[in-house]
This record gives sequence, C-alpha cells and structure tokens, in this order.
Amino acid sequence: MKELPIHIQLHPESDKTLYEQIYEFIRDEIRAGNLLQNEKLPSARFLADSLQVSRTTVDMAYGQLVSEGYLEARARKGYFVDTFEELYAIDGVRKPEQGGLKNRKEQISIRYDFSPNAIDMRYFPYATWKKITKNILVDANSRLFSLGEPQGDLALRTTICRYLHGSRGVNCAPEQIIIGAGNDYLLLLLEKILGRHVHVAMEDPTYVKAYKIFRSCAYPISVVPMDENGIRVDCLRRTDAQIAYVMPSNQYPTGIAMPIGRRMELLKWAAEEENRYLIEDDYDSEFRYKGKPLPSLQASDSAGKVVYIGTFSKAIAPAIRISYMVLPYPLLERYRSGCAFYSSTVSRIDQTVLNEFIQDGYFERYLNKMRKQYREKHDLLLNELKPFEKAFDISGGNAGLHMLLTDKKGRGEKELAQAAKEEDVKVYRMEDFRMGENTAEHKTADDKAVLILGYGALTPDEIREGIARLKKAWKLE
Amino acid sequence: MKELPIHIQLHPESDKTLYEQIYEFIRDEIRAGNLLQNEKLPSARFLADSLQVSRTTVDMAYGQLVSEGYLEARARKGYFVDTFEELYAIDGVRKPEQGGLKNRKEQISIRYDFSPNAIDMRYFPYATWKKITKNILVDANSRLFSLGEPQGDLALRTTICRYLHGSRGVNCAPEQIIIGAGNDYLLLLLEKILGRHVHVAMEDPTYVKAYKIFRSCAYPISVVPMDENGIRVDCLRRTDAQIAYVMPSNQYPTGIAMPIGRRMELLKWAAEEENRYLIEDDYDSEFRYKGKPLPSLQASDSAGKVVYIGTFSKAIAPAIRISYMVLPYPLLERYRSGCAFYSSTVSRIDQTVLNEFIQDGYFERYLNKMRKQYREKHDLLLNELKPFEKAFDISGGNAGLHMLLTDKKGRGEKELAQAAKEEDVKVYRMEDFRMGENTAEHKTADDKAVLILGYGALTPDEIREGIARLKKAWKLE
Repeated sequence: MKELPIHIQLHPESDKTLYEQIYEFIRDEIRAGNLLQNEKLPSARFLADSLQVSRTTVDMAYGQLVSEGYLEARARKGYFVDTFEELYAIDGVRKPEQGGLKNRKEQISIRYDFSPNAIDMRYFPYATWKKITKNILVDANSRLFSLGEPQGDLALRTTICRYLHGSRGVNCAPEQIIIGAGNDYLLLLLEKILGRHVHVAMEDPTYVKAYKIFRSCAYPISVVPMDENGIRVDCLRRTDAQIAYVMPSNQYPTGIAMPIGRRMELLKWAAEEENRYLIEDDYDSEFRYKGKPLPSLQASDSAGKVVYIGTFSKAIAPAIRISYMVLPYPLLERYRSGCAFYSSTVSRIDQTVLNEFIQDGYFERYLNKMRKQYREKHDLLLNELKPFEKAFDISGGNAGLHMLLTDKKGRGEKELAQAAKEEDVKVYRMEDFRMGENTAEHKTADDKAVLILGYGALTPDEIREGIARLKKAWKLE
Repeated sequence: MKELPIHIQLHPESDKTLYEQIYEFIRDEIRAGNLLQNEKLPSARFLADSLQVSRTTVDMAYGQLVSEGYLEARARKGYFVDTFEELYAIDGVRKPEQGGLKNRKEQISIRYDFSPNAIDMRYFPYATWKKITKNILVDANSRLFSLGEPQGDLALRTTICRYLHGSRGVNCAPEQIIIGAGNDYLLLLLEKILGRHVHVAMEDPTYVKAYKIFRSCAYPISVVPMDENGIRVDCLRRTDAQIAYVMPSNQYPTGIAMPIGRRMELLKWAAEEENRYLIEDDYDSEFRYKGKPLPSLQASDSAGKVVYIGTFSKAIAPAIRISYMVLPYPLLERYRSGCAFYSSTVSRIDQTVLNEFIQDGYFERYLNKMRKQYREKHDLLLNELKPFEKAFDISGGNAGLHMLLTDKKGRGEKELAQAAKEEDVKVYRMEDFRMGENTAEHKTADDKAVLILGYGALTPDEIREGIARLKKAWKLE
C-alpha cells in the first residue's frame, strides 16, 4: 500500500518534546488542508524508522491526534485523517420522529447549525476511555458479565454520590441512587414509582422531551408561567399538580437561575402535602460562566421532597447511556416495595468504565477542559453578537451552551428563522419549546419573537461565519 | 513475587499441540485441586522460558483457560486460578426485593441450587468478546460515541432480523425491530405503545416478572388456565383481554410446546378484534433436546398480530443488556407517531460488539457448544432422576434448562422444598410461578405439588451430588 510521505523536520534542541513536534506538525498539516480527509498516514513503525525516533514517540503523537479527533485508527488498516465534518453536531440535531434518512440529509444541508443541544466531542479523551475499557476487560471475570444490582453497582453509586455532594451539594446516600440507561428510561421508571393519575406541572417553556414523556404516561399536565425568578409558585398553587418538574439551576431554554427565595417557596409548596414532590432535572449544571455556581435545589431540601435527576450524556458523551436519579426516602421505599424487580439497564462493564473514569480524575480534567472551551466560545459569541444589540435583547448567557435573542422590532420567529435558513444557518425558535396544545392559552399578543442560538458544537470559525451570515440575513448592517 | 512452580512435561511427538498440552495440564491441575483458587500462575514469559516454547504458545493456553473460566487475568498482576464457586448461579437467584447483602449470604449458604434461571457462563468466550471490543474501540471514532437511532443501529437490527428468520422463522424487516436494554425495558416501552387501560391475559403459571411488570403498569390481568397444549383459548375468550402474553415454544415454567392447532386458535382470537395482540416471549428458544424445534408463533402470523420479544441475556450473558422486540406494522405506526422520541437505551459500542459477535459466527459456535453442554446435563439429570419415578412424574425435559417433578404421594411443595433445604439443596416450587392474588381461585383441592429443578449452572458433579442429597431428603431409598 502506498503510504503518504510526511516530511517532518525534528528539532532535538527545541523546548518541545519530539512527540509534541510530531503531533503539532501533523495537526497543522491537517488544519492547513495539506492532509486531506481519509488520507492514510505512514504506519507508526515506518514513521519511527524514517525519523529515527522510538516507536513509542510516534505512538504517543498518533494517540493524541486520535484522541483529539484529527486521526482515526482503523483496526489492521492504520491511521487515517478523520472526517472533520462528522465531528460536529453530534447530538440533538436529529429528530427521530422524522425518520432517519430524510432527516440526515437535511442535517447535512444546513451548514451552520446553532443547536442548543449539540455538544463538542472533539476534546473527548477517546484514548483514555478506550484504555480504561481495555484494562477492565483484561481484569474482567465472569462477575462482570453477570447481571448487576437493579439500582446499579454500589461502587459507581458511591462515586456518583460523592461527586454530587462535592459539585452540587446534593445530600444523599448511595442507596438512594438509581442508575439507568438515560433520562428517558429513568422517567419511565419514576412513573412506576409515582403511580398513575399523577398531575404534573411544568415550566413554560420547558424541555419538550420531558413533556412528551409525561404525556405518553398519560399524566395530566399543567403549564405554569415563569417570571424572571423562574416558575411562578402562585400560579402553581392554582393547579391540582402533585409533581412539579423544574430546572432550577439553569432553566431550559430560558437560562433562568432560580434564586433561593423562589426555591424556598417551591419547597414549601411541596412540603404542604404528603404526595407532592419536585423533580429537579439538573441536566447541565457543569457549565456556568458568570457568578457562583448555584447548588442544587435538592441541597436545600430537608423534607425529602426532591427527586434529583442528572446525566453523563451531556458532560461526557451522548453514547454514555448512563443517567442517575436520587430518590427521597419515601419514594425509595415505594421503589423497593414495588419496582425493585426491574433489572438494571446498564451493563456492569459500562458502569465499571465510568466509575474508573471519574475516580481516576479524568472526568474532572475533561470538565475543566470543556468549561474552558465553552467559555471561550461563549465569550466569542457574545462579542460577535454586539452588532445585534440594537435589534435584539441578548440573554441566557450565564450558563449552559446557548443564548437567547429577543426581537425588539416586532418581527416573527418564523420569519427570522426562515431568513437565517436561506443563508444556510439554523437557529431555533422559542415556539418549539412551548408545550403543544397548551401554547395558545399562554401566548399573549405581545409575546416577542425569541430565537435560540446554541454554540456547543461549533468551532470558533463557524461561530464567526454563522453570525456574519445571520447579520446579513437579518439586515443588521 | 513468588511464583507457583509448574512442572509440565511436554511431549513434542504427541498428536496434541504444545499449546493444548499446556492448557490441558493446567486445567487438570485445577480440576484435581492441585492448583487452588486465587493461586498465582507463573507469568507467560517465565513459563515460556522454562518450557522452551514461544510466548505465543503460552498466551494461547492461558487465553483458553481464561475464556473457560479456569483462570482469571488481573491487569498488571498476572493470571490467577479463578474462584470456581462464583461461576454458578449467575442469574435469577438473587431476589432484589430482599436487599443485596442479606440475600447474598443466603445464596452462598445453599450449596446445590437447582435454579431454573441460572445459566452456565463457564464456556462463554470471554476472550473473543474482549478481542472484539478491543478492535472496535481501536476503530472507534466519534460516531460510535454519539447517540444512535432510537430503535437501535440498523446494522444490528439487520443482523437480528436475519438471525430470527433463519432460526425462528420470524418474518420481519429491520425497521420493525426495536433494540432495548433488557426485556423489562422493552415491556415498559410496549406499554407506551399499547397505551393505558389494556387488559392482559397471562398463562397460569407464568413468568412472574412479566406479571409484576404488567401489574406495575396497572393493567388489569386475567389469569388463564392451561391444558397440555398450552393456554386454553376457550377460557381466554371468556375474559375481556385485548393482549395475551404467551410463551408458545417452551412455556415457562411448564415446558409445554404449543402445537400448531392451538396456535391457530390463538391467532384467530387475536385477528377477531382490531386492538387484540399477542406478545410472544421467546425467551430461550435456543435450547431444545427432543423433537424438531418449533418455529415461532410470529412465523404463522399473517395478520400482524404478534409482538415478538427475545433477549441475548440467556443465550449470551446476563450482562449483555440487549433485547429486541419485533413490532407488527400497526403497532410500529403507533410507536413512530407516539414513542419514537425515547432515546435508545443501548450504547452504540455495545451494539457494534454484539453485531460482530453474531456476524463473525461466534454466536452460532457458542450456541452449538452450549446446546451440547446443556444436553449432556439434561441427559445426566434425567438419568439421575430414574429412582424418583415411583414418587414423581418427570416432565418438561424437551427444551430449556429445567425439569418438573410432580408429586404422586400427596406431599406438599413446602414440605418437600424444606426437606431439600435441610440437605443444602434448593429446589423451586410451582407455587412461586402462580400469580399473586389470583392463586386462590385457580387452585383446586387436587392440585399436586410440583417442584422445579434447573440444571443450567450446575456442573455434572454437582447435579449428581445434588440429586443424591434430594434422594436422601425425600426418602427415596
């Protein structure tokens, strides 16, 4: 097989190690477009021989490039330049309801997708994850291939417990934690714990998928308006709801952080009746750019009223199908007596890999890296949006991975989104986060157009170019 | 570290390869008790040097011993004799309702556990599974870490489709298949597809976990008696059931195989009303010892009335949290319009590993191996049970991993199980497979005691000793 010649000039007297020099050379060649997608690189052995360096040096450089997504390692074939286009918009863009193929086409056709769900997988430590998996499989005995505890392995539950206490102030014991294959599954299980005929209150707008799940559970749903402090407890009191589903730390998609006063009101509401509970979806508590990170609502709950739900899909990777739910003791009792026969949905191998990833400090390191990455994009987007300030109020930028643009000129969401689309830019409409049949009654005549711009999966260049196109689309120049 | 000396005499002129000789020597030493649990073996390098063979030869022998469960490889530590006691009773024994620890104690205390759910993991090709996983992780790019299709990856669905057609006569397209993290999850999803207020009919006795799941869905449940051909359709007709949950190929736990006539009756019942469906749980269709394996009920269904559910937990390993459900088109439509937003509960990496395991022929090879293993145990148990024939009718031995002993002498199940327990033998009572509050009305005065003896996880020696103890316990000598 013909191998791509690479002419690297190494500088032994440089401050940089040989491995760094090789890594940077190849990375820059790819960035500059001198190495093209799917091109095969020289084998590590060949490159080591021709550069007169050790095989380990080349392996390290290649490993780093793979872990950063520049190269792809194909078993028994070698290293190839990775398909860069495939690295963005990992999550959230696909709407399964519309069927796979048709939709994937649409996905490709929109060049600058400001999806608020998409995350950046370019920095995911693939190599580390693979290494841990490999080590665990070497260690693996039949126990790891057996069915684990229904609530999840105690080791992982203990680790999650410690992590949640340290980072989110969550007070719980490992026995209160249930590990499941994704939030959707945990909400299904929670339905079995709560029982039927449970009336749920949701913020408006909200996370539409949770709304769909509650609806598919045939729960009556009350849509409760918000003010600048979050869900209005006075309005909540006028409903028959037993359960309120809230996102107090960073409401999705408004970005509102609920202050302590409102939290206390909400906890008071829940404490007034035995069967009232709050579901706290702390979906992306990890990323906050301004102000002190708020502890969880669960941290202020002394009455055992909060079901705390979180996931590793956002902070690690969508493919890590591991979420967790912390049950207050009254619900834990119900789970134990009525639902503990449901087998775990997460394999023990996956649980063990995740546990080591957290325990060995990789998770924290990755979060720190991503916080920095996202903050840079956040600052860039805020800066690029300066010329938009005359026409839009810009908000929601304290945390999370998106911002809100509220129109001041009386234009419609549909009109603005359509104009963007014509410039190959996808922005998201607040309308899509309001709940189905209930929209009409809550929408007033003076509701302004609000557009949602997510930046998680875009590169700085894409953010710049996307915003430049939006400027043109919306005639801001 | 002191390493165990092993004095292997190799015979270069033997028919057996050097690798086989090493493998057999160590295996026999372990079997004979000369190498004890947790003892460390010489490193592969050391053994290769001292035997004057290649490192690869030793690696192969060790690999084989690990894959058969004789040795355990611990990362960076070496090879150890595996804890044999841990290899049985992988599944089914644990009752999560009773809490982990207390129960695990009880598990250890019963020496000969004839669990009908337990499977034999001693022959699982751990090494192959690990190798595939490793290769896939080398190949893995960001796509594998992204969220897959809600129904599961098309590649795996296509493979399952082909497998089900070939082995079970199931007629379906990949688009009808939904992959999920275990049967329990798929039944929860099916509840969302079927909707609330669905009246379910179940065979009596039945798979109690499915009963519990339907009950936790608050479905009204009708318990329908069986005759020697399975569920009585005349009795089914007297219920208001829309859904019948059946196990036509090998009813659990009775072992009844439903003949074609009864199948046709059942399909006719389902076809009479638009909203009637049959759930076919084909939980362990892989193991049949007598007679031709029956095709699935789904294979005879021309009206789109059968939901076919199967799992890899039984045929591969309980930890493989991958099950599948084949939806008839009317239900597929409902899934698509109302439930397709539920994210997949199985990671793409796990789906890819399983897909290769099947496609590369390992699954078939493993099934063949296990069929042989289980048949040998089946024949042994049947033979050992000869002295029981005066006191018991022995049945259910055509398929699956257990047999039924029906008492002829008017003794009670509780009495017999208790006597067994005193000899450190656990047998299972038919009583436990009858459904909760409905038991009384269906139990007649002349119901005989039926005991269930599973043999999946026991070694031949354990079967012999367990039966010898039962003979003593039940005074059959």
